[in-house]
Amino acid sequence: MAKPLVLHDDRLFPAEPSARAVARELYAAVKGLPIISPHGHTDPSWFSENESFGNAADLLLAPDHYLYRMLYSQGVPLEQLRVPSKRGPSGADPREAWRLFASNMKLFRGTPSWLWLNYVFAEVFGFEIALDEATADLYFDTIGEKLATDAFRPRALFERFNIEALATTEGPQESLKHHHAIRDSGWGGKVITAYRPDPVIDAEHEQFGDAMERFAQLTGQDVWSWRGYLDAHRLRRAAFIDAGATSTDHGHPTATTADLAPAEAQALFHKITAGTFTAAEAELFRAQMLTEMARMSLDDGLVMQIHPGSFRNHNRLLFEAYGRDKGADIPQPTEYVRALKPLLDRFGNDPKLSVIVFTLDETSYARELAPLAGHYPILKLGPAWWFHDSPEGMRRFREQTTETAGFYNTVGFNDDTRAFLSIPARHDLARRVDCAFLARLVSEHRMTVEEAAETAVDLAYNLPKRAYKLDQTSPAGALAPAA
Amino acid sequence: MAKPLVLHDDRLFPAEPSARAVARELYAAVKGLPIISPHGHTDPSWFSENESFGNAADLLLAPDHYLYRMLYSQGVPLEQLRVPSKRGPSGADPREAWRLFASNMKLFRGTPSWLWLNYVFAEVFGFEIALDEATADLYFDTIGEKLATDAFRPRALFERFNIEALATTEGPQESLKHHHAIRDSGWGGKVITAYRPDPVIDAEHEQFGDAMERFAQLTGQDVWSWRGYLDAHRLRRAAFIDAGATSTDHGHPTATTADLAPAEAQALFHKITAGTFTAAEAELFRAQMLTEMARMSLDDGLVMQIHPGSFRNHNRLLFEAYGRDKGADIPQPTEYVRALKPLLDRFGNDPKLSVIVFTLDETSYARELAPLAGHYPILKLGPAWWFHDSPEGMRRFREQTTETAGFYNTVGFNDDTRAFLSIPARHDLARRVDCAFLARLVSEHRMTVEEAAETAVDLAYNLPKRAYKLDQTSPAGALAPAA
Amino acid sequence: MAKPLVLHDDRLFPAEPSARAVARELYAAVKGLPIISPHGHTDPSWFSENESFGNAADLLLAPDHYLYRMLYSQGVPLEQLRVPSKRGPSGADPREAWRLFASNMKLFRGTPSWLWLNYVFAEVFGFEIALDEATADLYFDTIGEKLATDAFRPRALFERFNIEALATTEGPQESLKHHHAIRDSGWGGKVITAYRPDPVIDAEHEQFGDAMERFAQLTGQDVWSWRGYLDAHRLRRAAFIDAGATSTDHGHPTATTADLAPAEAQALFHKITAGTFTAAEAELFRAQMLTEMARMSLDDGLVMQIHPGSFRNHNRLLFEAYGRDKGADIPQPTEYVRALKPLLDRFGNDPKLSVIVFTLDETSYARELAPLAGHYPILKLGPAWWFHDSPEGMRRFREQTTETAGFYNTVGFNDDTRAFLSIPARHDLARRVDCAFLARLVSEHRMTVEEAAETAVDLAYNLPKRAYKLDQTSPAGALAPAA
Repeated sequence: MAKPLVLHDDRLFPAEPSARAVARELYAAVKGLPIISPHGHTDPSWFSENESFGNAADLLLAPDHYLYRMLYSQGVPLEQLRVPSKRGPSGADPREAWRLFASNMKLFRGTPSWLWLNYVFAEVFGFEIALDEATADLYFDTIGEKLATDAFRPRALFERFNIEALATTEGPQESLKHHHAIRDSGWGGKVITAYRPDPVIDAEHEQFGDAMERFAQLTGQDVWSWRGYLDAHRLRRAAFIDAGATSTDHGHPTATTADLAPAEAQALFHKITAGTFTAAEAELFRAQMLTEMARMSLDDGLVMQIHPGSFRNHNRLLFEAYGRDKGADIPQPTEYVRALKPLLDRFGNDPKLSVIVFTLDETSYARELAPLAGHYPILKLGPAWWFHDSPEGMRRFREQTTETAGFYNTVGFNDDTRAFLSIPARHDLARRVDCAFLARLVSEHRMTVEEAAETAVDLAYNLPKRAYKLDQTSPAGALAPAA
Repeated sequence: MAKPLVLHDDRLFPAEPSARAVARELYAAVKGLPIISPHGHTDPSWFSENESFGNAADLLLAPDHYLYRMLYSQGVPLEQLRVPSKRGPSGADPREAWRLFASNMKLFRGTPSWLWLNYVFAEVFGFEIALDEATADLYFDTIGEKLATDAFRPRALFERFNIEALATTEGPQESLKHHHAIRDSGWGGKVITAYRPDPVIDAEHEQFGDAMERFAQLTGQDVWSWRGYLDAHRLRRAAFIDAGATSTDHGHPTATTADLAPAEAQALFHKITAGTFTAAEAELFRAQMLTEMARMSLDDGLVMQIHPGSFRNHNRLLFEAYGRDKGADIPQPTEYVRALKPLLDRFGNDPKLSVIVFTLDETSYARELAPLAGHYPILKLGPAWWFHDSPEGMRRFREQTTETAGFYNTVGFNDDTRAFLSIPARHDLARRVDCAFLARLVSEHRMTVEEAAETAVDLAYNLPKRAYKLDQTSPAGALAPAA
Repeated sequence: MAKPLVLHDDRLFPAEPSARAVARELYAAVKGLPIISPHGHTDPSWFSENESFGNAADLLLAPDHYLYRMLYSQGVPLEQLRVPSKRGPSGADPREAWRLFASNMKLFRGTPSWLWLNYVFAEVFGFEIALDEATADLYFDTIGEKLATDAFRPRALFERFNIEALATTEGPQESLKHHHAIRDSGWGGKVITAYRPDPVIDAEHEQFGDAMERFAQLTGQDVWSWRGYLDAHRLRRAAFIDAGATSTDHGHPTATTADLAPAEAQALFHKITAGTFTAAEAELFRAQMLTEMARMSLDDGLVMQIHPGSFRNHNRLLFEAYGRDKGADIPQPTEYVRALKPLLDRFGNDPKLSVIVFTLDETSYARELAPLAGHYPILKLGPAWWFHDSPEGMRRFREQTTETAGFYNTVGFNDDTRAFLSIPARHDLARRVDCAFLARLVSEHRMTVEEAAETAVDLAYNLPKRAYKLDQTSPAGALAPAA
């Protein structure tokens, strides 16, 4: 017997009826707001080319490391899940891969993937019965049929999802041709880029050499001289701004920053480009470049995002066979108070700069990040990230940051996803969890319901627009004061 | 339209009706108990001189780093908030500063400041409409008028607040003249001091040299000899005890203790006073002095408080312009298990010694502090501190310490405040949060309601009196057993 | 007036009525399931000899470090609680020790001991009034009388407790004679052993020398040669498997693993046995031996358990007077991401190996352990351990691990206890807390009630059987899929 698939209207709200009623009221005010997605990893070619997506396995399973990491943890080989390796595409049959996934849905109980998937199944594809072993084929066939229709092409879904702005992430070595094509196409969807210079900053990145070559070609600069290298950044940043970028993004192993004297920085750079650096020097160079990026942001206005703390490619064998981003990135303890000090000593008091800090180490929420963001004018807190982009994770973020940093040193939600179809699911989940948190404050009389309603709208819509400078012309009235 | 200001009778209690009913019942038993404030930073001259406080901005805003740090984080210059700098008093108009604050009240949503402020506005000043841009002037004028009346002088408020005992904090280099004046005045309010020797122990403190000079003058000792230095501490401790002190307080960067051989300690001391020390030696000296202070406490009975883990004056430019205590102190990871071992190896099993440990690093609650306090006779846990002195912070403290340390290795509440008017607000908040926690245990049948009621009274009143030796003659019967 | 002792049917369930109703429904399905106790520290001689237990103090108080550590923290000497010292048994009168404990029951409010004790008092001994000063003698006498009856002998209680399998823990230097005697006795109770080689692996263990001697005698190997030492492990593992063992257990100070070249490992071993090692070398040897044990597990199928992070015997004076395991073990920050990498690089992708990781550092739950277990095929998460084996601790474990690791990378409950009579109390508590967590997910519509019911049974029964290979023949159907 097929099990029904029901998205309950009150999901993620507190069970207690009076708090639930408040959550409902707050959610009603944010449910329909357009989606602001200022940070993510969707593929811009989807929107420039507007080709139909393929089958269920290749769209929903094989690219989603949340899903295949869990299956892999239970002994399922990635090959069987259609995950491509360095030797090429998986040879598995997509339908078989989908069946294997479907028969293991219980592994996702209690995870955000369960919530995201069921939203996609119910809201995007209209299923009314749950995915399991028995319904795997029905799902596979139905999804395949729908994806073949025009209503499920990328631009149609973008519009149906009510996305007001969507940022992708590109490196300095990338051409941005898809963004140019989107702009030139006359299509009205706002798909912008973000400047992620890691491949030309992280000398330990496996693409560093190639990316530097491409960086030189694209800018015409001598990127192996310190001056030329910095100028090349300036040029690419300008090109990214031209393609809509309002932010940079930095995915370093730690949050360490440095503020070297110019001659020291130049000498360090020469070690980096000569390939004669130690691990500590690679780290110091990344640290210095955060301060250089901040300096450039003061000139060109790009908001900085710092995403530190992941031990990338932890599984050696898997990295060798399958490459990066295969669900084997593991968070580490991450320190901010000493790490950020050099940058803060240099630029921390200048309200023209904006730095959004993220963490994978929740212990820093109440101890370090909220106190830092609750003091320094340049700092804001990014939302609960990656492993913590979940109901419990978001709740902990609010519980542990709000009392010191308030709501207004945070920047709303990032979906940070490669999974385009899950974007509405993720924003809906975030809105519900924030409404649930606010509802608890209201029902404990720690906030009025009017304040909570205004705050809910700010968190869902106004704060991300302001923090990412996506609405320079009409700042939402509700956010006016300060300064 | 002005918004009403309502302090709901059930604020901070669980929303669920049966748990809320228990919380109400527990709170009824503690609401009216006198305030024991064994640790704080009010100014004793208020009570010796009993002068009227000034205006709303200078009383409530300019001295409260919780408030101006948040405004500063949003780009508001401290100068505009009446915060004095090293160059002198702020030139801002108090009314304008107050308006600026009032127009940014939304920044404090979800923070304890919002709760404390509204308690002060409603309970102390009788406001029935909320503070915002529109009511800023009304507030400023009304508060100014009330402060000018005798009913709002410090002693009158002390009595109205039902404070049974209030400890201030002074350094060894301070004269205690205000405490002497209070005692000599015949006024019955119990305002005592606490011995905070940091300025003469922390060689990295910017006041170290001056404080040592004054320390020498006040004691007549050769404080630059190790023996004279220790004797000077003994003399000042005796003088502090004479001014009512029952405790010492130590605000070190870490919890590190040391137990050097006497000759080593003396040699280290000479490096410190010669100014030839390294950072590690300054740290080792602070560590050694905790053990020396413990040794003296075994003689004179003063309870020790250790408040470690703050990176003081993190914002370099702000420190240079405005000095210390300007909302730029940031917590750091803090280790206790190895740090406290030298002191514990020496004195840890002697029930005549009492050491109250605090933390800004909540990760140590369940992992280190509760196991330590749940074993060593000398250790007790101070309440959730500073950034964690908040509803969520206090809840986490109870949830993470009670199961290993119980309630009876904790010491009740400290308000730890410079904001005199907020004292009743803070104690009321702490009592409510403890009652809410106990009510949850009762409604989950993890404790009887009779036990919870007794515990609530112990937490609010008996434990702080016993832990800080404020009632040596009549120990509350409820706390009798053990040993 | 004696206070009633009531175990409420809904204890530990959420107060909110709809969530409570779900918790009740889930609990009804697991309440009666047999107990699987795959990891603990009961004494196998109890079951081989089946002698009556002694009096209340010697059975329930003197061996329970949860109890006497709390009393000690309030200044009660261990001697008075019947805790034996190195000089011999305590001279205290058992009844006086029991009275002292009874008069201090309030210290245990809010702790799991309070819950476990009251379960034992009500369910095992049938008390209907609470233990306190007034009822201490009644308790002492009644318990003594009952313990003298056949119904309270170890085997009778084992059967009454509905224990399907119980693992004890022994070292390689132990004979396993009690396990042999149990097997030879014809009694049907399944009491198995587990291989805990710390005394012959940890060169800093005070029993290392003696244990190595005994290890040599029992195996007939030259355990001072690297090859003979490894062979001796293989022989004892085989002997343990013969006595029912399905797992090994490793209680190291850290989680550090190493994967040295054979010649390096051999050279290190010779330093260890020569007694010329540094602390770092002792640590490296423990690290290497985890990898050696993993290698052996791939051959003989024993599941590995790693229990790191306790600073053992922290209280120097107490250790000198009373020896180890006296309530003075304190958790420390524990890192896993780098620590486990050498072992994971070697064997992390081999689903034939199973490694169950525990922690005393809850900060690693969401940050390190859930991501590791949610990726590596060999890793599973042990339940909330020791100080965290409590309602709040278990709740945090589920809240912080489920969203990334799911339920199916966890292994159900371990009671990990020396306190035999508390085993049903502890399993009942764990089942209730898991049902409460699942009920919250159901009432927030994050899981269906059917899924929750299946999961509850898996957590209480199927997962521990599968994870510890206690049911190789009939894997519970519900757990089938994956691979």
